[in-house]
Amino acid sequence: MNLPLDSIQRPTLLLDESICRSNIHWMAEKARRLGVNFRPHFKTHQSGLVGEWFREEGVSAITVASVSMARYFIEKGWVDITVAFPLNIRESIEIIELSGKADLNILVTMAEPLESFGQVLKVIHRPVGVFIKIDTGYHRTGLTSADNEKIESIINTCRKHSMLTFNGFLTHTGHTYNARGREEIEMISWEAFYQLKSLKDNFDSGPGDLMLSVGDTPACSLLEDFSTMNEIRPGNFVFYDVMQTVIGSCGTNRIAVCLACPVVSKEPSRNEIVVYGGAVHLSKESVFYKGKTIFGLVCSLSAGGWSEPLDDCYVSALSQEHGVLKVSKEVFGLLNPGDLLGILPVHSCLTAQCMGKYLINGNIAELHM
Amino acid sequence: MNLPLDSIQRPTLLLDESICRSNIHWMAEKARRLGVNFRPHFKTHQSGLVGEWFREEGVSAITVASVSMARYFIEKGWVDITVAFPLNIRESIEIIELSGKADLNILVTMAEPLESFGQVLKVIHRPVGVFIKIDTGYHRTGLTSADNEKIESIINTCRKHSMLTFNGFLTHTGHTYNARGREEIEMISWEAFYQLKSLKDNFDSGPGDLMLSVGDTPACSLLEDFSTMNEIRPGNFVFYDVMQTVIGSCGTNRIAVCLACPVVSKEPSRNEIVVYGGAVHLSKESVFYKGKTIFGLVCSLSAGGWSEPLDDCYVSALSQEHGVLKVSKEVFGLLNPGDLLGILPVHSCLTAQCMGKYLINGNIAELHM
Repeated sequence: MNLPLDSIQRPTLLLDESICRSNIHWMAEKARRLGVNFRPHFKTHQSGLVGEWFREEGVSAITVASVSMARYFIEKGWVDITVAFPLNIRESIEIIELSGKADLNILVTMAEPLESFGQVLKVIHRPVGVFIKIDTGYHRTGLTSADNEKIESIINTCRKHSMLTFNGFLTHTGHTYNARGREEIEMISWEAFYQLKSLKDNFDSGPGDLMLSVGDTPACSLLEDFSTMNEIRPGNFVFYDVMQTVIGSCGTNRIAVCLACPVVSKEPSRNEIVVYGGAVHLSKESVFYKGKTIFGLVCSLSAGGWSEPLDDCYVSALSQEHGVLKVSKEVFGLLNPGDLLGILPVHSCLTAQCMGKYLINGNIAELHM
Repeated sequence: MNLPLDSIQRPTLLLDESICRSNIHWMAEKARRLGVNFRPHFKTHQSGLVGEWFREEGVSAITVASVSMARYFIEKGWVDITVAFPLNIRESIEIIELSGKADLNILVTMAEPLESFGQVLKVIHRPVGVFIKIDTGYHRTGLTSADNEKIESIINTCRKHSMLTFNGFLTHTGHTYNARGREEIEMISWEAFYQLKSLKDNFDSGPGDLMLSVGDTPACSLLEDFSTMNEIRPGNFVFYDVMQTVIGSCGTNRIAVCLACPVVSKEPSRNEIVVYGGAVHLSKESVFYKGKTIFGLVCSLSAGGWSEPLDDCYVSALSQEHGVLKVSKEVFGLLNPGDLLGILPVHSCLTAQCMGKYLINGNIAELHM
């Protein structure tokens, strides 16, 4: 990294290419080693450039969180995309248009919207793949593995429309985010794998080609066995963040993004530093860390990049443009207005979205949006 | 309002011009009636068009939250701007450039950065006004009214540099956001007014022209006496939001923005509706409301606009693109994928920032950024 510190005037999201590439390499290699397809979720970085780093690791199939994001990555040359968000039939025409440019998979939780979608499919260019979203315990959305009738109904809707191909079952075990450490995450994941495997055994009437797709960075970081699954879709691991260190997915040395923030004020009576860098830059995501609710960890910055988090320093509050940092007496004494500090975000996906661009090796790369 | 409901495919931030103009008119009128200058904070809407609605109410002086926002509004023809954020000396050159195009006031909490700024002022076009930020109890940033030496030091720095004009004292009583109801907010405000007035009495050596500037929407909505103050700087009132209704600043009928969200899934076992509309659209701001932590209230939509919040319906969780809504059995039965719902945001400033644009009378208006 060669940080142009003097040119940074405002909150700036630094991306360390070498940490990020190493995260990508590590996960791609792990998927190969464990014999599971790797379809990374691109919602975290949303960047054409970071996408190229994946391509260099042999990745050709991706996951996105919205139809808009699918469009962006199709424009960047990606042609095998799962939109891992429940089918929004208000975007039917756009999905059909995009399906002419890439192999698209969509996600459904109910037969009715799929039936509506099927009815506007006449102009479609090539088949759209359909995954049924299974709720394996996160309780955000999806059918349960006991919802046999509803699952049948969706499969029948696929059979009825020649341009819909039933692909298999997909789950997101987002409840791993409330877990701490490998053992809890294994329990959650194994339960999910068991449910998906049962569904495959039930509904795979043919040659055993139904796909089982699982995601989430904690499980993909910590588990060593995905042998009953066909593909993994982790996203956050590309950058990691403070939340993932609290869960136990990684160490802070694998966090690839850091918000550079100018110091604007010192509050000596409270050992607080106020920086230019607030909720509109980091997002208001917080995490419970060493007995406190925090909005980020604090690093020092140099031309070579950012340091490990400084002891006893954290972001204690955020307003629209302000970040309030509780710091140690020692750090307080060293800092002055005009200095820069680094903040490791609690949730890198939201921080990347808020910022809309990265500083990578002195160059700005824009996200989509 | 004439909502083009059929054309809404994705989360879309609706702005009701008539509610918004009525909020602006009400506050402008109140300031006139109470004999205090009105310098509204434009950080909430960040929109050139909404700015014009203020101009039509006679507003010519504004507040912004950043130098970037000052630049945007100068481009829109505003020439009297207070940047209500502690001086960031990394932006000195830009501030000096902008001071050639408008009367700028800056905010300081310490003499040192002002001294640094003063030293690069040689090329300045016209004087920059300086407010000292006073912490009257919010404890985010600012000097206290007892910090006489530090205040003197800042005033002396202004005297030393002919292009710096000491304007007076400014406070943001942000702790009104933790208050509930008029009485608590009056107590907080009166204490702040007392402190500012004492400072004016102490430091106003000349003809009594030091300015006292106060802000915050709860106080400006609820108080009827600002007679010891010179100007008010409320911002959020332009849209209001669920947080302000909880504080007691307004009723839900004065909320001027609503996020239109497509329904994408129904979860019958939990009476939950999942919409396309998540943390990247609403922000993760939450508020404690009727015994629960919520991320928004739920309305029905029609061509005429949005309804009052539906009973027993609220946003219970947000992930990146998903919103999970707890709804009544009755509402659950009426909704289907493809329908639209409206969500009243908890914090309209952050939602506006996340969305970056509004749908106003069928036309899209972009924010700055």
